[in-house]
Amino acid sequence: MTQHRKAVSPHVSPLAPRRFVKLPPLEGVRLSAGAAGIRYKGRTDVMVALFARGTKVAGVFTKSKTASAPVEWCKACLDMSSTARALVVNSGNANAFTGKNGWEGVSEVAAAAADIAGCSLEEVYLGSTGVIGEPLPFEKITRVLDKLVRQAKPNRWREAVQAIMTTDTYPKMATAKAKIGGKTVTINGMCKGSGMIMPDMGTMLAYVFTDAKLSARVLQDLLEEGVGPSFNSITVDSDTSTSDTLLLFATGKAGNPAIRSASDRRLRDLRAKLNALLLDLALQVVRDGEGAGKLIRVDVSGAESDEAAKRVALSIANSPLVKTAIAGNDANWGRVVMAVGKAGEKADRDKLRIWFGKQLVAERGDRAPKYDEARATKAVSGLEVDIAVDLRLGRGKARVWTCDLTHGYIDINGSYRS
Amino acid sequence: MTQHRKAVSPHVSPLAPRRFVKLPPLEGVRLSAGAAGIRYKGRTDVMVALFARGTKVAGVFTKSKTASAPVEWCKACLDMSSTARALVVNSGNANAFTGKNGWEGVSEVAAAAADIAGCSLEEVYLGSTGVIGEPLPFEKITRVLDKLVRQAKPNRWREAVQAIMTTDTYPKMATAKAKIGGKTVTINGMCKGSGMIMPDMGTMLAYVFTDAKLSARVLQDLLEEGVGPSFNSITVDSDTSTSDTLLLFATGKAGNPAIRSASDRRLRDLRAKLNALLLDLALQVVRDGEGAGKLIRVDVSGAESDEAAKRVALSIANSPLVKTAIAGNDANWGRVVMAVGKAGEKADRDKLRIWFGKQLVAERGDRAPKYDEARATKAVSGLEVDIAVDLRLGRGKARVWTCDLTHGYIDINGSYRS
Repeated sequence: MTQHRKAVSPHVSPLAPRRFVKLPPLEGVRLSAGAAGIRYKGRTDVMVALFARGTKVAGVFTKSKTASAPVEWCKACLDMSSTARALVVNSGNANAFTGKNGWEGVSEVAAAAADIAGCSLEEVYLGSTGVIGEPLPFEKITRVLDKLVRQAKPNRWREAVQAIMTTDTYPKMATAKAKIGGKTVTINGMCKGSGMIMPDMGTMLAYVFTDAKLSARVLQDLLEEGVGPSFNSITVDSDTSTSDTLLLFATGKAGNPAIRSASDRRLRDLRAKLNALLLDLALQVVRDGEGAGKLIRVDVSGAESDEAAKRVALSIANSPLVKTAIAGNDANWGRVVMAVGKAGEKADRDKLRIWFGKQLVAERGDRAPKYDEARATKAVSGLEVDIAVDLRLGRGKARVWTCDLTHGYIDINGSYRS
Repeated sequence: MTQHRKAVSPHVSPLAPRRFVKLPPLEGVRLSAGAAGIRYKGRTDVMVALFARGTKVAGVFTKSKTASAPVEWCKACLDMSSTARALVVNSGNANAFTGKNGWEGVSEVAAAAADIAGCSLEEVYLGSTGVIGEPLPFEKITRVLDKLVRQAKPNRWREAVQAIMTTDTYPKMATAKAKIGGKTVTINGMCKGSGMIMPDMGTMLAYVFTDAKLSARVLQDLLEEGVGPSFNSITVDSDTSTSDTLLLFATGKAGNPAIRSASDRRLRDLRAKLNALLLDLALQVVRDGEGAGKLIRVDVSGAESDEAAKRVALSIANSPLVKTAIAGNDANWGRVVMAVGKAGEKADRDKLRIWFGKQLVAERGDRAPKYDEARATKAVSGLEVDIAVDLRLGRGKARVWTCDLTHGYIDINGSYRS
C-alpha cells in the first residue's frame, strides 16, 4: 500500500482550471477533514459535513448492478426520510463488493456519526471511493469521527474535497448565487473522479449544497433534470463506477419563499445556475480524466431522437481509436465515421457531415471538397477539441464530453493497486 | 505517407504462433501478390485469388452503418450470383467513406479483373483495408492486375496474406482436412486484422477456401453458424470496422458426394474442422491485437441467456480498466465486478463468483475466503490469462477473447496516418 497519489500522478492535469474557486460559507453547513490512514500515508482521507436541522436531501446513484455498500446505504436513507444531518466520505477504499463486512462498515460508521451528531441513523449519508473488493477498515473512520465533528467549520470546503481525492490531480469545486423570489441563495458543489468514468448517473462522488429552502421533492426533480446534460454526458473510459453518487443538500436557511413544485417559475434562476454548476463540476472531472491531455466535446445533431444522438455521441467519445488519434494530433476523421457506423443507430453514410472545430471534413460519403489537412490537424492539436456530426435524418441532438487516451491512462491503471 | 508498418510495428507480437503453418495447394485456387504502391513503399499491397469455374461463395459482413465500398460490392455480388472466379484485395487504403470515387474504384477494379479473368462482373469479390476516408488510387491496382493474374500459382498463400497486412505483425493462416462421405477435403484460411477489432461479424478481412463440393446455401449456413463463436467473439478495442468481411469459397474439386443441406450428417467432420479453423484465425487476430502483450479469455456462465452472457463477457473484455490492470499484472478483480455491474444485464452481487485462472477470487459479494494475492497475481502474469464469471442466475453462457491494453496501442494509434 504505497502512496498511490504521489507515486503515479505527480503532475496536475494540463486541463486543470487556471485557478480554483473559493467556496463561500453556506448557512447550515459545517465541514472538516482528517487523516484516518485507510490506505494513503501523509494525507487526509475522510471528510465530514454537518447540516442544520431540517436540511432536505435528494440523490441520484449509479445504475451498476454491483453497486457499493455506501450507495445502497444512501438509497435506503432516501427511501426512509428526506432530511440529512451528516455526510461522511472516505477515500482509499470504495467499500464495494465487500459483502457482510461492507454492510457492517456502513452501519458502524453511520451509527457512530449519528451518535456524535445527535441525529437518527437515516439522516447520515455515506460515500466511499478507492479500490474495489478490499474490506473497509471502518474502525479507522469511527476512531477519528468525534474529533472531525468537533472541528467542523463553515469554511473548510477545500480541505473537505481534498480528503476524498484518489487519482484526481486537483480538487473540483464550483459555486453560484441564484435568486428565488427576490431572495439570494448560494449553491456550493464539490466532486471527485478521474477514472472509471462513464456515469450512468453522477460520476463517482459529487455533493452539492444550497441554503435555499426547497422541499425534498423539488430538490429531487431539479437533480434528476440537471444530471442528464451534465454528469450523465461525460465519459473518460466507458467504465461505469460501482460508487457513483450525486447528492444535493438544501439547508433552507436562505429565507426564500417556500417552493412546492419544480415547475414553479420562481425556480428559473436557481435551475439555470444549478445546471451550470453541475456541468462545471462534470467538466472538471473530464478535465482530470486519467492521463487526459485534451478535453474533447462531441456534438451530434440530426439524429432520429435525442437518445439516438446520445448513443452516437458516446460511441465516438468512447472509441479508443478516436481518442488515441486526438492524443496524437491526428485529424483522423475516418475513425469518427467508423464510430458513427458502429453505434447501432440509424445513419446514412451519404448524408453524414463531420466537422473538426470549424472545418467541415466530410460530407456526401466522402472527404469534404475544401478539406485542408493542415487546418484539420490544427483543429485537433489544442487543449480543447470540438467534434461535430450532423446525421441529417431528424431533430435529435446530444452533446457529450470526453478526454483523449494517452500513455498516462495506461501508467495509472496498470499499477493502481500496487 | 511513410512506411507505416516498419515505422510503428518493428516487432512481432509476443503472442504470435511459434511457427507458421504452410497452407497446401487447394485444387481450383491460384494466388499471387504484388506491389502497387498504394500507400506503403518496399512491400506488396495487392493480392489476387483466382477460382475454378463453378466455385461457390458465401459471406458475412460488418453491420456498420458506414460500411466500405468493397463491402457493399461483395454484398451486391452475393445477391446476384453465388459463384466466384476472382478475389482482389488491397492494403493501405480501406476505400471506406470515399463517396463516388469509392464506388468508381470498386467498379473499375472489378471490371479490369473480370476482363482479365474472363468472368462476369459479379463473380469478382473485392476487399480493401487501411486508412478510412482517403480516395483509393484504384488505377494503381488495375495497372498491376494483368501481371498478377498471369503469375498466379497454387502455392502462393503466404505471399497473398502478407500483401494485405496493415498493423498486423505476422501473417495469419490456418489449414485443416475434413472428410465428407469418405472423401477428404481441404480447408485453407487466411485473415488480417489487429486494430479496430470488435467484429459485428468477421474481423476486417478473412478468406477461407475449400475444395469441397457444397451448394452456396450450405456454405452460407455453415458460415453464419461458425462466425458466432469465432470472429464474433473477439474484441481488441471495441471498435467495429467499416470493412469486416469473411468470405468462404468452395471450388468443388474434391469430388465429395453432393450435399444439399447444412443439416446433412455427413457434414459433421467438415463443420467441426471449419469451426476450429475459424476460431484459430480469429484468435490469431487477437494475438496480434495492437500492442497486445497478453491473450485474455473471458468465460461467463449462469446468465439468463446466452445473449446476456455475451454482453457481460464483452463488457469485461472491452473494459479499459480491466485490460490495463491485466497489462500491469494486477489481479484487480474489483474491476471485473465493475464491468459485470455496468453491462446492463441481470446480475446479483451476492451470487456472483469470479475466478482468475483456477483461483476463485470473489464470491458471496465479497473476496473469497481462500483468496491468495500471490496466486491471483500469478494467474494474471502469464501470456495467457483466463477470467471466469458465474452469475448463478440461469443457464446462459458465452466465451470471448480479447487482449490487454498497453502503451503499444497508444503508440500505434496516435500516429496511424502520419
